[in-house]
Amino acid sequence: MIDNKNNYSLIIVGAGPAALTASIYASRYNLDHLIIGEAIGGLAFEAHKICNFPTEIEIKGAQLVEKIQKHVESLGNPIVADRVVGIDHENDGFKLTTQSNKKFFSKTILLAPGTRHRKLNLPNEKQFIGKGLSYCATCDAMFYRDKIVAVIGGSDSAHTASLYLAEIAKKVYQIYRKDRLRGETLWINQVENNNKIEVIYNTEISEIEGKDKIKSIKLTNPYKGEDKIKIDGLFIEIGTVPQKALIEELSLETNEAGYIKIGIDQKTSKKGVWAAGDITNGANNFRQIITACSEGAIASENIFKFLQEKK
Amino acid sequence: MIDNKNNYSLIIVGAGPAALTASIYASRYNLDHLIIGEAIGGLAFEAHKICNFPTEIEIKGAQLVEKIQKHVESLGNPIVADRVVGIDHENDGFKLTTQSNKKFFSKTILLAPGTRHRKLNLPNEKQFIGKGLSYCATCDAMFYRDKIVAVIGGSDSAHTASLYLAEIAKKVYQIYRKDRLRGETLWINQVENNNKIEVIYNTEISEIEGKDKIKSIKLTNPYKGEDKIKIDGLFIEIGTVPQKALIEELSLETNEAGYIKIGIDQKTSKKGVWAAGDITNGANNFRQIITACSEGAIASENIFKFLQEKK
Repeated sequence: MIDNKNNYSLIIVGAGPAALTASIYASRYNLDHLIIGEAIGGLAFEAHKICNFPTEIEIKGAQLVEKIQKHVESLGNPIVADRVVGIDHENDGFKLTTQSNKKFFSKTILLAPGTRHRKLNLPNEKQFIGKGLSYCATCDAMFYRDKIVAVIGGSDSAHTASLYLAEIAKKVYQIYRKDRLRGETLWINQVENNNKIEVIYNTEISEIEGKDKIKSIKLTNPYKGEDKIKIDGLFIEIGTVPQKALIEELSLETNEAGYIKIGIDQKTSKKGVWAAGDITNGANNFRQIITACSEGAIASENIFKFLQEKK
Repeated sequence: MIDNKNNYSLIIVGAGPAALTASIYASRYNLDHLIIGEAIGGLAFEAHKICNFPTEIEIKGAQLVEKIQKHVESLGNPIVADRVVGIDHENDGFKLTTQSNKKFFSKTILLAPGTRHRKLNLPNEKQFIGKGLSYCATCDAMFYRDKIVAVIGGSDSAHTASLYLAEIAKKVYQIYRKDRLRGETLWINQVENNNKIEVIYNTEISEIEGKDKIKSIKLTNPYKGEDKIKIDGLFIEIGTVPQKALIEELSLETNEAGYIKIGIDQKTSKKGVWAAGDITNGANNFRQIITACSEGAIASENIFKFLQEKK
């Protein structure tokens, strides 16, 4: 038997900017809906400094997320802090199962679970998490006051991590496998002109060394005559990968990189399922907070029309 | 001879949310660029109340625009208050001429001039502008305290106009040619439950009557036995149409409704020309401030890549 309280017109999976904006628009259309997500704000929450959101000159990710969350809550929408682990067809809609084994039913689904940090995939990478290795400078930089750290990566998230760490640590090595940093020129200029940051190009890490905690990293190319660098902290900022579990569960079409293929209306290859935000190939693969918000809005409008036509 | 000061990598035509966000992103990429637009904020500036921008629970259009404008100005970007009236090919780029006959040169162009208010196209419509007839409730509602007004239209801009006018006027007739209001359900509910607002469905205006100012409007269907209604003010909120002049000047491909056809990278059919915001067929034709901002960001990133590859 279906409990009416668990039965919605729309369930939004995820709680980042795409999901939350979709909820705001769904509310404007008076769609009964539920948000189920583990982490409010998703990866945006971790951003130390956001300088390209149009209405905010400079803001912390957590503060930006808080503003959107307050908007969602002002409209009376519940956010269930849980993880959707299963989605099955049921009658004309879907049955969703969460990690805590709750069941929900919905006519339509908007997938906006976002992405997770890409890992280096070194053999002992996992054992050093929390022991000198981190995927989030904003979260963990404070443990490295006056210490030596390395940031791996060459795009905006690596630049902002290096810049933030340079405010706290004694020395920051930014190690990148290519010969030129990419991303926003202003960040690149700041990284290159910061006297605490040393960029090591054309280089990767081949090994993490240490016992209880990280002591050093081995490089694929010698740097200043040395094939290893002593460090206290290692920050891995080499991009993100889509959250794959639900994509596979629903057998959704993806592009080669694994992102959900969507139409201009945010529809996926499966009827009744839309997707928005970093997990899609939308917005010309330009994964930004502003583009995620836009995708969430477009999805909700299209879901509203879909449900209106079904009436 | 080209004056270097008038020579840019990118010129953004328009000064609404798409144009301003594009400028913020262009700055992040350190692109030397110029914004040329008549009206900062475009139509967004006129909005009395915006309730669906993710980071703002409720905000006036003018305030939202001010926030984005401050961001643009904080990055040192000039906004030239002028109207681009001509665009010609010149060397490897474009020559732009403004209404005040200034000349500018640019390698690339982003068109974001937005839309203008659609008119009823009644024979004497033009003569009543400023004499009881308005296309902007936010601008002109204050002249109708305790008076009787009519709002023409059935979508969100008409709803928000009616609701705002109901705070000031004695009586608001909202006249719509279809049998059901469209747009956001929350606005519809507020309109239908407001005791100052009377919605007249399935009806259009056939004539505006008056001498020095509007006295009454004739209806295509009698309402409560009368074929005309006495009013003091008439607010036309029947949507928008694209600013066509530059589209024709550049012979850009458009869809049937006249909006510029763009790819997922915001490119138009002409090399070196991108478009963003309400004037495009992007964002699934869902013309919102948040989708315009997103389109502006995507365009700037793509223009940056284009210019990098040319180097």
